[in-house]
Amino acid sequence: MRERPYQTLSSRYLWQSQWYNVRQDQVRLPNGSELTYTIIDKPTAVWIVPITTDGHLVLIEQYRYAVDDWCLEIPAGTGEPGIELADLAARELREEIGGSAEHILPIAEFYLMSGIGNGKAKVFLALNVMLGETAHEQTEYIHLRPVPIEEALDMARSGMINAGPSALAILLSETKIREFFREQQL
Amino acid sequence: MRERPYQTLSSRYLWQSQWYNVRQDQVRLPNGSELTYTIIDKPTAVWIVPITTDGHLVLIEQYRYAVDDWCLEIPAGTGEPGIELADLAARELREEIGGSAEHILPIAEFYLMSGIGNGKAKVFLALNVMLGETAHEQTEYIHLRPVPIEEALDMARSGMINAGPSALAILLSETKIREFFREQQL
Repeated sequence: MRERPYQTLSSRYLWQSQWYNVRQDQVRLPNGSELTYTIIDKPTAVWIVPITTDGHLVLIEQYRYAVDDWCLEIPAGTGEPGIELADLAARELREEIGGSAEHILPIAEFYLMSGIGNGKAKVFLALNVMLGETAHEQTEYIHLRPVPIEEALDMARSGMINAGPSALAILLSETKIREFFREQQL
Repeated sequence: MRERPYQTLSSRYLWQSQWYNVRQDQVRLPNGSELTYTIIDKPTAVWIVPITTDGHLVLIEQYRYAVDDWCLEIPAGTGEPGIELADLAARELREEIGGSAEHILPIAEFYLMSGIGNGKAKVFLALNVMLGETAHEQTEYIHLRPVPIEEALDMARSGMINAGPSALAILLSETKIREFFREQQL
């Protein structure tokens, strides 16, 4: 581990909400100069790659107001402080696609936007998922799209999955997905 | 293209800066109810995957204050309004790694955080890159890390490239990188 060279002199919130805060820090650099950094302050969120018993990856197609567009995504979400991320993953899987999984495995983590915010994604792979009722109200603005695994991987690799963190979560899970199905065939 | 079902009733900035704004919209849903959305409003940024003439992918290792950690990234940046994104890609390549490329190809685009912001990444692949002087001051907090292509792809697939958009940009470029080197060998 390398050193962490900047020193935080002061910190205040410019804006706070349930989902994220805007935080402004006064920072001293190693050469003594000072800078102001404004950061999107956000708890770690989980992204869950749901693989069904019959070899499909369950995508969610939904209208997202923030981008005014339809997005292909996987289940994801943020929890209350202190929640275990694996528990949060199981809950989001249940709420967003009505899924229950035989296994939920931690895969990887990554920073969502290292230049401007501290948000981190923790990726879980949910295996042998059975689909049931979803907790959110079914509107015409959200649809489940189970896709054969190879097709979903191609969609992620080609840019068709337009929500970045979802596409990356799928590609980070590829090795483990293949390993799982290889073992099942033995 | 599906319909875009939400109607924006009003819009105001809670905070504005050179890099991003926080915008709050009052929105009417199709069922007539109203919601407030608070959005991180950010121009499209470019991410550039630099491949050198000798088959290396040039990573940048840098300390990022927002996450208080060292990140593996590729060159990226946002430009002034109206700039052509391919020109911005060439400029960022030059400024961040001192690179000039024989070809700069558009690869894909993705939303950075479709739930809370409108930021979009546009990915370019820079081929036959020659490295030279960088424009930023060389401090001990930023280092160029040229890595053989296959190793860089493995690093992206395994989560070692901890800056999410950089990892995804590399994986989205994989097919085109392989195609380029296959053609060169013919």
